[in-house]
This record gives sequence, structure tokens and C-alpha cells, in this order.
Amino acid sequence: MKLKFIIVLCASISTFVCMGEWEPTWSTRAAEEAEAVAAIPCSGHGRAYLDGLILKDMNKSRCECNSCYAGSDCSQFLSDCPANADGGDPYFMEPFWMQHAASSAILVSGWHRMSYSYSDGSVISQLLVEYIKKVHGIVGNAITEGKYIVFGSGSTQLLNAAVYALSPDPSMSPAKVVATAPYYPLYREQTQFFNSRDFSYEGDTSLWKNNTNSSFRFIEFVTSPNNPDGKLNKGILKGSDVKTIYDRAYYWPHFTAIPSPADDDLMLFSISKLTGHAGSRFGWAIIKDEAVYQKMMIYLRLSAMGVSRDVQLRVLKLLDVATEGDGKEIFQFTYSTMRDRWIRLKQIIYKSKRFSLQKLSPQYCTFFKRVRDPSPAYAWLKCERQQDMNCYETLKAAGIIGRKGSNFSADERYVRLSLIKSQDDFEILTNKLRSLVAKEWESNPASI
Amino acid sequence: MKLKFIIVLCASISTFVCMGEWEPTWSTRAAEEAEAVAAIPCSGHGRAYLDGLILKDMNKSRCECNSCYAGSDCSQFLSDCPANADGGDPYFMEPFWMQHAASSAILVSGWHRMSYSYSDGSVISQLLVEYIKKVHGIVGNAITEGKYIVFGSGSTQLLNAAVYALSPDPSMSPAKVVATAPYYPLYREQTQFFNSRDFSYEGDTSLWKNNTNSSFRFIEFVTSPNNPDGKLNKGILKGSDVKTIYDRAYYWPHFTAIPSPADDDLMLFSISKLTGHAGSRFGWAIIKDEAVYQKMMIYLRLSAMGVSRDVQLRVLKLLDVATEGDGKEIFQFTYSTMRDRWIRLKQIIYKSKRFSLQKLSPQYCTFFKRVRDPSPAYAWLKCERQQDMNCYETLKAAGIIGRKGSNFSADERYVRLSLIKSQDDFEILTNKLRSLVAKEWESNPASI
Repeated sequence: MKLKFIIVLCASISTFVCMGEWEPTWSTRAAEEAEAVAAIPCSGHGRAYLDGLILKDMNKSRCECNSCYAGSDCSQFLSDCPANADGGDPYFMEPFWMQHAASSAILVSGWHRMSYSYSDGSVISQLLVEYIKKVHGIVGNAITEGKYIVFGSGSTQLLNAAVYALSPDPSMSPAKVVATAPYYPLYREQTQFFNSRDFSYEGDTSLWKNNTNSSFRFIEFVTSPNNPDGKLNKGILKGSDVKTIYDRAYYWPHFTAIPSPADDDLMLFSISKLTGHAGSRFGWAIIKDEAVYQKMMIYLRLSAMGVSRDVQLRVLKLLDVATEGDGKEIFQFTYSTMRDRWIRLKQIIYKSKRFSLQKLSPQYCTFFKRVRDPSPAYAWLKCERQQDMNCYETLKAAGIIGRKGSNFSADERYVRLSLIKSQDDFEILTNKLRSLVAKEWESNPASI
Repeated sequence: MKLKFIIVLCASISTFVCMGEWEPTWSTRAAEEAEAVAAIPCSGHGRAYLDGLILKDMNKSRCECNSCYAGSDCSQFLSDCPANADGGDPYFMEPFWMQHAASSAILVSGWHRMSYSYSDGSVISQLLVEYIKKVHGIVGNAITEGKYIVFGSGSTQLLNAAVYALSPDPSMSPAKVVATAPYYPLYREQTQFFNSRDFSYEGDTSLWKNNTNSSFRFIEFVTSPNNPDGKLNKGILKGSDVKTIYDRAYYWPHFTAIPSPADDDLMLFSISKLTGHAGSRFGWAIIKDEAVYQKMMIYLRLSAMGVSRDVQLRVLKLLDVATEGDGKEIFQFTYSTMRDRWIRLKQIIYKSKRFSLQKLSPQYCTFFKRVRDPSPAYAWLKCERQQDMNCYETLKAAGIIGRKGSNFSADERYVRLSLIKSQDDFEILTNKLRSLVAKEWESNPASI
């Protein structure tokens, strides 16, 4: 009765001011769909996505459960399920975005940017370039002044664009592409798959260390911090015809101290490891040399006509949130999560003689203005026992799925364990590791 | 006073039911931003986009004006401005999406699909695959049953993925990539730029017509309907080692009759020419052979780790609208626009002896269930006069910017004029053409 009365009154005056605030028209349906999906709790062990709702059957929008959780609402824990520490899904940042739901949402209209280009004729949003420079300015991890920025579908696409751009004229010998083990395998896989006349993969950098007076063009991949082991690597080859691609994907305060801003000739970054949006496929290159920039632009135009304008809009909004206020909040969240995970992991592994972790030293961080331990995205675990030659299989037998050392051209004694997945994944991983290390003590109490 | 009273009452009961309906919480800001931008009228000669608003200065969101319009609200017509009929921006579909604002909008949360993969481990939304099959089923332009579908950043990325997938083993001679003039130049440019050991561009198909008994692997590009001239081309080369890539981007009822569903081994389509969203960079390939599908998947994983999940969500929503009801509304809109433009263009050019248009015959369309004239995306204009050898320059002198015939490996007597841009662009183009043809009569009244 009361409700009816209000509705009648509301209808009798402008609906726009009835609630004393702005009232939506065409956006209501999209907003309602998004909120309906977000309101599905999935027991805190999964999430529902908008894609499902588009089926027009609200009941069909299912929870997608975290590993080892099942059931329509993800409430069922599968106790004999292995810990999945493979892959690099950066779900550890998801709670930050849930906490910033209002400021990070975008409503995309059906007619948003249908053109091939922005109004300046480019396929790159200059506004987004400004935001990227702003983030680097706040963090102090890269010098962008006087440099060129291009976008790619993740840094993945930019790796190959950079190799093409740095390769010599087709009339010369193909460039020799090298990387130092342990390294991210995509460098090799891409170079081999594209099988270009302009470059070829030539194995580990160390093979060519004393060859810098040769007439070859070298392209050296340097990942810093390194994937898998988190080391702040530097280029090894020197010489006028050595070109270096610095993969800086992990050079953010969540993972490492920032000793100084990187100022390399060609640096690659990715939204995946900055804000956690791996699925958006967005990366950028910061380039010193104009000719290299122009060649990368040609690559990006010919291979895909630039990065989707929808993605550029989303990334703009994410960076807008990331740079809010003094721009420190997101890094305080991500660093404290990673720090916490590393403290807990170390507590477990330090009790073991069978397993060890990579050793990384504390360093002064110009961003946090204090000395801090590194907290890399991955644990680079070593099986120390003579008989555990295949560390991947040793862990697998204990219900832990990592990524094999051999994938990174390293010894099979190593396994990479991802620490950037969901909290559920991390809890399961630490439980399995704790049991494994406890068994070590049970079987050999004398070593206590 | 009245308003205050209502707010107090509203606050005293659940806000969810205060208006008698659902009430948003965290989505309000995004909805408000989108509606604020959409409400900027830009005098009907431009549009404002959400990107601008993210600057947090509502006043900074500027109108982006159509060609030949200027001023902060796009109200100023620049009378001495040339008609720009270059490029393929499919703005002619924009009014359809504005008419379907509520159903085509999506609200993307900050935590939407952060993972590298969908819950099935794939980088391809199976739901979107279903929608793509549904559209082809409605239109009857392609057989999808029993075939594989992969996604790319526009059909652009899929062109090269297909060439890689169809190239022979590296131990064999490189594949010879060919196309028939006039053809879309990207086929050649991509193949030459990537400079692979697996394939090379070998010129016009006609050069190899009698060579099919050779031991070479041929990869023939066939665009059907053809860009630039709209012809329903078919493959020319025959033989067991000939592989054909059918670029079917324009095989939609807006542009051509659909005589029968295409059933080629490898077909490429693009959202750009289906719904007009060129800026979203989304295309798909329909593939008969599993081995080819697997190789294309490797290409897409290594080059970019699949298409952005944000883009896949947006395309899903667009196809959801496109397939609403009997799925005919969008094509009725697009065909009627294109038909209208062609009727008006023909009325002008048919009065001329100096210019001619490509000749295309009416055909029975299984979608509209009647015989219809084609209405291609581009006019393929020929300058007939002896002295107008460079048709591009002839038109340019009259204030019309087209795309040179030589870009399509055709004679300079040809120019491609885009008919799929905004209504403003089309009006300016027809005005310029009308003046140009009128001059023909003024200077040579005897020919009347």
C-alpha cells in the first residue's frame, strides 16, 4: 500500500528527480545484467561472468569454480585434487578490482568506436599513452620521456614485432636470436615457428659470449625480473651490432624492489602483470629509436591493424583506477599479497632439506622508499636430493602440478610454481607443500 | 518539499523496491558516464566517446566530427572540403546500433575474465562459436556443420595464420602465394613482410594457371565478393597441391545476393563487415581440415595467445542483438541503406560518359527470397576518357579522395570509392560526383 503510493507520486513528477538523482534510460539493462552476475556468490570459490547471461536465461549463468572446488555454487571441496601451480593467471589481483567495482566498471555502447582508427588517424589511443606514462612516472620503473610507445595484443605480440624490427635488412645475414637459460620459452617458440629469412633462434646467449666481434646481428632477450627465477637480469652480449629486447613484464613493485627506472632501448610491459588482466591481451613497448618504432608499427598494422579499441578503453579505465590519488593503493595491495605469500612459502620450504628456493637479496626500493625482500611471481623450486632428478614428477607424485624446468631450458631438478593465482590455489599449494615437507621429517627424524 | 518527503519514505523501505523495480549500486557510475557521453549530440555530424570522460573532466569530452564538419559541436560545415571515399570504416551501420542502444550495451566489471583462458582451458569462447554458427545458419551464407572455428584479431590476423597453416613442411619448397588482380593488397604485403622460409608471394594467379602439374604447393587467395569490385570470384588454380583461402568478409546480404551457402575448405569472416565494428578487431575462420585448424591454433597462441576476452564478450552481445527474433532486422537495415546508396550513385554515374561503374548482374538471394541487385561495399569506378589515365588524380582534382587502382594491382584507370562510411560522407561524395558529371555536360552539350 505504502509502496503503491510512492510509485504514483514518483510517476506524477519527473522520474529524473524522483529519487533526487540522475536516472538511467538505455543503460539499465546492461547495468542490471552486470549486477545480477556479480551478485552470484559462488561460495567465494568461483565467479560467474557476464557471457553466461547473454544466453537470456538467467538460470544458465553458471559459476566457474576455482581449482578443486565443484558444484553449481562451487561449495564442494575436492579433497583429493592436486594443487595446480602451473600457468600464470594473475588472479591474486582480482580482490582489488572487486573492491573497486564502481570506479573500474565501463559501460560500452553498441556504437562505441566502430572505426578502424582514432580521430587522429592512428590505431593507438594517445590518451592511453599518457596514462601509461603516468603509471611509469608514479612507480619510477621506466623512463618514458622522449620515447615512443606502441601497443600489442599482450607483450606476446610485441616480442615478435620487436624481433622483426631489430632484424637487419633481408640482404644481410639473418639475425641470431638468443636468450639465457632459464628463460621464457615463447622467445624460442615464436622465433622458430615464424621461420623467417630475417632471423633464427641460435640457442643460449652463453654460446655467443666471445663472438661479439663477429659480423652477425644479435638479438638478445633479457627478462628482468626473470621468468622463472625473478632475477634482475642484465644483457650479456656487448657490441655495436647487439640489440637487446628487455622484457620488463615483472618489473612492478608487487614482485621486486625498483632500484631505479629502466632506461633500455626497447622495453616490453604487459597489463597482465600490472593489473592482473591477462585475458584482455594488452601490452606495450617503450622504444628509444624512431626507426625501430616505425618498423614495429608496420608489423602491428600488417598483423592485426592494431589493438582492439574495446581493449584500449578497458585498459584506460583500469589505469585510471590504478593512478587514483597518489597511485600507491594498488601496489600496496599487490605487494602485501605477494609478501604474505612469500613469507608463508619460505616458512614451509626452509624446514626442508629436500627442496630449496631461488636466493634473491633484499634491495632498496625507490617506490616504497625502503629496503625490501623480492616477492617474485614464481617460486623456482629445486629438488636437492640425488634421486629426485625429475623434480616435476617428484612434486606431481605429491599432488603438486608445477611447470617443468626443461620448459625454461633448465635442469629437470627445477620446477616453476606460480604464486600469483587465486588465494584458493595458494592455500591448496601450501597445504600440499607442508605435507610433503612434513613427510621428509617423518621419514628421517634423525635429521631434526 | 514534495521531493524531500519521497526521499525520506524511500529511504525508510528497501531502496531495491522503492521505485517498484531493481536499483543499481556499483554500476551507477559507469552507466551515468556512458549516458552522459551518448547524450552529447554533436549536431548529428559527429559523436563523443567514453574515452574522453575518463579524463574526469566532463567538459573535456569532445565531439569527434565527421569529415568536413568542425567546431566543438560539429555544427560547422567546411564547404571546400574534399569528399573522403578512401578507407573502409563501416559507419553505415552505426544508426542501427544507436537504435538498439539498450540491447547492445554491455557493462564490463573490473574483474571480468582476468584469466588467460576460459574455464574449459581454451582461449575461444564456445558460446561465441555457437552464436557465429547461428548467424551463418540464419543468413545461409556458410556451412559450419562439422567444421572448426578459430578467432583472430580481425580477419587480418587470420590471413597470415592461414598462410602458415597451409604452407608445406619446412623441408619442402616454400609455398607460392598468389591472388588475382584486382585484389586486397594486404595479401601481398603480409606475405612479403613476414618473409618466411615457408612461403613467398609469387604474383598474379594468372601467371600460374598452366602450372598446376608442378610440384609446388600453391596458396591462392580468393576474395568473394571481391574487394574492390564486388565480384563473386572463384578459385582459378586446380590440382591436389592447391590450397585456397576464401576471404568471405563481404559475403553478407548488405552487399550481395546469397546464391547458396559457401562450403569452401577455409573461409574467413570479420565482424567489421557483418556488424560494422571494425575497431573491435575480430574475425573468424571456418575450417574443414583438423590439421589446418590445429596449425592455425598454434599460430594464434604463439602470436597473441588468442583474442581478448573483452572483445569476445562484446562480439557475443552484438551477435545476440543481430540474431534477435528471426535475425532479419539487421540485414533489412543494412541492405536498405546500401541499396539506397547504389540507386543514388547509379543515377549520377549513368548520366556520364566519362566514368563507369563495375557491372554486376542481379541474382536470386536465398536470404531475401527474391532476385536482387548487388550492392557492394565499394564502387569500382573507371575513368573512360583517353586523357584520364590516372583516375585517382582526375577525381582528386574534383575534390574526391578514392583509393588508387594500383593499390589493388589494377590499372590506374580505376579508383575504389567507399560506400560504407557515414551518411555525411556519402552525401558529400554524391554532391561532388554530381558536380563533376554536370561539368561533363556543360563542357560538351552536343553529346546530350
